[in-house]
Amino acid sequence: MRLRNKPGAHDKINEHPDRVISTPADFRGNWKKEIFKNENPIHIEIGMGKGTFVNGMAKLHPDVNFIGIEKYTSVIVSALDLTLEQALPNVRLLNIDANTLPKIFEQGELAQIYLNFSDPWPKNRHEKRRLTHESFLAMYESVLVKGGEVHLKTDNQGLFEFSLESFSRYGMIVKNVSLDLHKSGIKGNVMTEYEQKFSSKGNRIYRCEAQFR
Amino acid sequence: MRLRNKPGAHDKINEHPDRVISTPADFRGNWKKEIFKNENPIHIEIGMGKGTFVNGMAKLHPDVNFIGIEKYTSVIVSALDLTLEQALPNVRLLNIDANTLPKIFEQGELAQIYLNFSDPWPKNRHEKRRLTHESFLAMYESVLVKGGEVHLKTDNQGLFEFSLESFSRYGMIVKNVSLDLHKSGIKGNVMTEYEQKFSSKGNRIYRCEAQFR
Ligand SMILES: C[S@@+](CC[C@H](N)C(=O)[O-])C[C@H]1O[C@@H](n2cnc3c(N)ncnc32)[C@H](O)[C@@H]1O
Ligand SMILES: C[S@@+](CC[C@H](N)C(=O)[O-])C[C@H]1O[C@@H](n2cnc3c(N)ncnc32)[C@H](O)[C@@H]1O
Repeated sequence: MRLRNKPGAHDKINEHPDRVISTPADFRGNWKKEIFKNENPIHIEIGMGKGTFVNGMAKLHPDVNFIGIEKYTSVIVSALDLTLEQALPNVRLLNIDANTLPKIFEQGELAQIYLNFSDPWPKNRHEKRRLTHESFLAMYESVLVKGGEVHLKTDNQGLFEFSLESFSRYGMIVKNVSLDLHKSGIKGNVMTEYEQKFSSKGNRIYRCEAQFR
Repeated sequence: MRLRNKPGAHDKINEHPDRVISTPADFRGNWKKEIFKNENPIHIEIGMGKGTFVNGMAKLHPDVNFIGIEKYTSVIVSALDLTLEQALPNVRLLNIDANTLPKIFEQGELAQIYLNFSDPWPKNRHEKRRLTHESFLAMYESVLVKGGEVHLKTDNQGLFEFSLESFSRYGMIVKNVSLDLHKSGIKGNVMTEYEQKFSSKGNRIYRCEAQFR
């Protein structure tokens, strides 16, 4: 999904500091009050890509604040375009790597984390880079409310198998497992770009929710 | 799998008390010493059907004792036929319902439990009958060694989803999840009758191991 050089990407982002927060660590502990100016729960998506999911969810759930996180500037500009177009009051974007989360949010500041079609890192030696690796789970736990949840969707069998094991090893409760999401007729599913692409190819979509105890 | 009336089934079973143990509660706490006459770990299969798996495993693992459990007399006679034919020293059968396990085995007496293609009981109101329901997990924990495992194989998506949730809610560690067993090229897999039937139809086989903490 990384576009090598996207000319003007940085400039574009800097023009919209109200959408892409440039110094997020400054708001640690004060996101609701200073950024969203309400007391609604905050949900984040890590690795949002072009932002279809985060904007779609924000539209469907106006009483939830959404933050889309994406490490590549060349990708986040597309999400910014969509966010400007949708102009929803409850969406912000962050151009950061997920491994900086604890510097940006305080314990209990987030209610939910979405991981959609995260990079699978299929090689065993890259296991630590998977966003459901134990080290990431520890980070998520440190910013979520007690009983907070991680919601995962992917078409990648290996990543899903690994994630189920990782969640359970960490002692999380796995709920609402679906081994074929689009055949289980669930309501309120907001598709991501990858979900559209892979489900139209006939790939199964796997989904689960994992809750910290 | 239940054959309504199988004439002479009871008689046949009674003729082989060395294979189908008729008063299993009498051996509670003494299975290794009195029945197997060795100190090898004991693994059981619950709902073994015609006994292909339990005999196949016993052949492959001569240093493990296997007990196949089946509630229907009309079914266990077929497993008895196969067991007599194979004549392995490390196989015994029990014509009981799984819910009597704690009366038959002492805490720590079993090392592992296999559930293969267990009845899915798809209706929500029958959830308690599923062999991975919490009430069964509590029973399994009460007869297994500390850190004992339950190994599950099924082609039933709903049962597998339910089981993953149930294991994690119980606090078990889920390991070696496979969402398509026959494509993952694992070694040492012993097929069951249902596994042969359903995989030849093209159904995916799901598998996982769940360990008590
Ligand atoms: C495969 S894409 C999926 C995009 C989108 N979620 C979807 O479902 O269509 C994964 C995205 O996650 C981003 N990403 C991967 N690791 C990340 C990390 N550690 N922090 C932030 N973003 C990350 C990648 O740059 C990429 O845009
Ligand atoms: C669908 S068959 C599968 C047989 C075999 N395991 C296989 O994979 O081919 C399930 C078997 O479990 C037995 N069974 C179901 N519930 C049981 C229980 N509570 N205790 C003992 N056996 C049970 C049934 O009688 C049936 O023979």
